[in-house]
Amino acid sequence: MHYPEALNKLMVALGKLPGIGPKTAQRLAFYLLNAPADEARDLAAAILEARRQTHYCSVCGNLTDRDPCRLCTDLGRDDSVICVVEEARDIVALEKTRQYRGLYHVLQGALSPVDGIGPDQLNIKGLLQRLQGGTVKEVLLATNADTEGEATALYLARLLKPLGLKVTRLAYGIPVGSDLEYADEITLARALSGRREMV
Amino acid sequence: MHYPEALNKLMVALGKLPGIGPKTAQRLAFYLLNAPADEARDLAAAILEARRQTHYCSVCGNLTDRDPCRLCTDLGRDDSVICVVEEARDIVALEKTRQYRGLYHVLQGALSPVDGIGPDQLNIKGLLQRLQGGTVKEVLLATNADTEGEATALYLARLLKPLGLKVTRLAYGIPVGSDLEYADEITLARALSGRREMV
Repeated sequence: MHYPEALNKLMVALGKLPGIGPKTAQRLAFYLLNAPADEARDLAAAILEARRQTHYCSVCGNLTDRDPCRLCTDLGRDDSVICVVEEARDIVALEKTRQYRGLYHVLQGALSPVDGIGPDQLNIKGLLQRLQGGTVKEVLLATNADTEGEATALYLARLLKPLGLKVTRLAYGIPVGSDLEYADEITLARALSGRREMV
Repeated sequence: MHYPEALNKLMVALGKLPGIGPKTAQRLAFYLLNAPADEARDLAAAILEARRQTHYCSVCGNLTDRDPCRLCTDLGRDDSVICVVEEARDIVALEKTRQYRGLYHVLQGALSPVDGIGPDQLNIKGLLQRLQGGTVKEVLLATNADTEGEATALYLARLLKPLGLKVTRLAYGIPVGSDLEYADEITLARALSGRREMV
């Protein structure tokens, strides 16, 4: 089947997005061709505009439209704790809990030797600079719970503990609302070893 | 959590796409901000370009970059059969079978009184015009197998049969490669009533 060339290009461009396979790319492309003209135009403009106006905060690495970002300049936040995350979107997830009031630091990735990502490829130098003032007392490592995130947390813990800081890690355990039956054994083992006394 | 305004707009624009919920919109938006600059630019350009260069064929309603489209002007195709589909993307699915060599006609939708779509909202007038020459002997109704598609097929069958045309419908039955066990009873009933003698 011969698609119009421009439609083909659109499907290829959409297919590069994460989690969008050829079938979904086709559906989205046809949708964009049939959608009201301003909806398609808005999306194209929003992509360009977001790229133009959004930058990384020079302090914490968060995505922001001003520098330093709103979180870094918020005087209401506790500047004695820095929570270290892999990606800016992790900040969103943590902020949604409304339980954390400290600052953040985005590594822009995790250690992954296979992908050629070592400590120098991550925003670790920036973190060390922020720790120099002596204001920060605790670093909370909130990297992902996968192999790369774990390796990164271990690496940072070894790097930071000698500086006399409190270094913590998010707790592992069974997700709230989940069935024990469906928890994998590694998670369950972590939940057991991390058990807490009820009060 | 306060997102940069431009990022917010991008998430809203992405969230309007079919099958893209808020979570996926967020993931895609962050991806687009982190992707190489030319990848984001290519996508924005592809959307605008596809809208600019792609039009509906004035004969069959297919999406095309020339008018009439390649299928309508292909002399190798059988012009005695017209296959009626709801959307241009249905043509892609049928062409992939390589079993159909006739022409197409795109209705641009299906009858749906709830959504205010009656016969006048569909491209039926264009179909009737194409049937006037007397070249077309068969109309194959390939609308979807859902309520709207069925209603549309019934409506068209009643409209076209008096014209002395052969009006056919795609066969219903169990999907190839599927387990009988998982077939719903309506499909199974249709497969039974449509059973064919083996040769």
